[in-house]
Amino acid sequence: MSIKAKVTLVGAGPGDPDLISLKGIKAIEKADVILYDALVNEELLDYAQAECIKIYVGKRAEQLSTSQDEINRLLVDYALNYGHVVRLKGGDPFVFGRGGEEIDYVQQYGIETAVVPGISSAIGLTGLQQLPLTYRGISESFWVITGSKSDGSLSTDLYLAAESKATVVVLMGYGKLAEIVEIYRQRNLHNLPIALIQNGSLPNEKVVLGTIDNILDESTEKRVGVPAIIVIGEVVAKHRSFQHIKEKALAL
Amino acid sequence: MSIKAKVTLVGAGPGDPDLISLKGIKAIEKADVILYDALVNEELLDYAQAECIKIYVGKRAEQLSTSQDEINRLLVDYALNYGHVVRLKGGDPFVFGRGGEEIDYVQQYGIETAVVPGISSAIGLTGLQQLPLTYRGISESFWVITGSKSDGSLSTDLYLAAESKATVVVLMGYGKLAEIVEIYRQRNLHNLPIALIQNGSLPNEKVVLGTIDNILDESTEKRVGVPAIIVIGEVVAKHRSFQHIKEKALAL
Repeated sequence: MSIKAKVTLVGAGPGDPDLISLKGIKAIEKADVILYDALVNEELLDYAQAECIKIYVGKRAEQLSTSQDEINRLLVDYALNYGHVVRLKGGDPFVFGRGGEEIDYVQQYGIETAVVPGISSAIGLTGLQQLPLTYRGISESFWVITGSKSDGSLSTDLYLAAESKATVVVLMGYGKLAEIVEIYRQRNLHNLPIALIQNGSLPNEKVVLGTIDNILDESTEKRVGVPAIIVIGEVVAKHRSFQHIKEKALAL
Repeated sequence: MSIKAKVTLVGAGPGDPDLISLKGIKAIEKADVILYDALVNEELLDYAQAECIKIYVGKRAEQLSTSQDEINRLLVDYALNYGHVVRLKGGDPFVFGRGGEEIDYVQQYGIETAVVPGISSAIGLTGLQQLPLTYRGISESFWVITGSKSDGSLSTDLYLAAESKATVVVLMGYGKLAEIVEIYRQRNLHNLPIALIQNGSLPNEKVVLGTIDNILDESTEKRVGVPAIIVIGEVVAKHRSFQHIKEKALAL
């Protein structure tokens, strides 16, 4: 039997295993090999056939377990030798997932590629919190920005974002929260609502709400850690617990 | 038996019925009533129980079949009289879906609410086309903007977006393509790649690629219509068919 090499990038969603799409489950069921990341819920591997080879290539924040070059090579090797490789990635494969680079590398070898989109944490974790990214009369857009550029600096997009009326979502940026808050402070947006969501959609989810001026204290007090997303904008005040935060701020 | 009133907003995804999440399917299975939109794939209704009441409240572009006020009232009426209402919406409920308004209205009546996020067409339709929204060294962010403000004008966010390096995705904006292109022309971004995706993820999907300067002609020639999303940015050149477009443009 000849092997049909194929690589499918599959978005696993933001954490809760029920937030993967049916199409994603079907791809896992047909996989000969699965390469999966740290932020992928391992329960999803149960959909795979018994003989499927499952390889952890996780990276968490800046700590690379397997380098991107190595992952690219593994995708090609396994596809050529075993057939259908599912590359299972947290959230959506093309939202800062380096999925584009993986597709480009694999296609150089003439290997067929496909993508099954996933629910990005930017949209999914806010949604589960009933925090609308857009709202008529409040926000006509949302801007999703990475907090982790390859050279370690903050994306310059964030400076323009702070001038916009867009709801801003920063992924992989919790380690730079102080820098991000400073950008907004310099624009006198002291009372702009901001939310942090750590381990979103999982049993240990933690949500911290505040304003540009008090979020650093709040995050220290509530011991927020990674992985966490940052949401900035007037829509954050729509969160059911925000009224309480506002009263606390006014009382000070 | 007393009725437990509840409203769950569920994102149906961008069109292909397999792009709904497992959590979304489980919500449909437990629904006493489903209120669904025009862009929701009706195959998803097959997951409902036989006795579930299914109501079409679709709106397409500017043509309102049922007004938002009426939908809000229906959500409350059905929840109080029948129990669990699933509000099934195309894409994600909080990406220009007026989900926030529905939640606010329903909560006024003390009715429990929940949200099951969906794959937004902004992320899902580009992903299926293997068009990465972000790409190291090319794009560090993406900005999703509505093309349909309530007063009919173009969002001012679009002017700032054209100055940014973000990949820009405009939803419900195909009718304003000429206006949008003009914003980019005025900034001399004549060769910036742009994509149109109509009926994305469905059998009748149509994808048209081009540049700011030729996309209006291309869209006329290829007879693109609504619903279509617009994607603008250097990442569009990563689409497998873009090289061909580039050669055509250079030949002119």
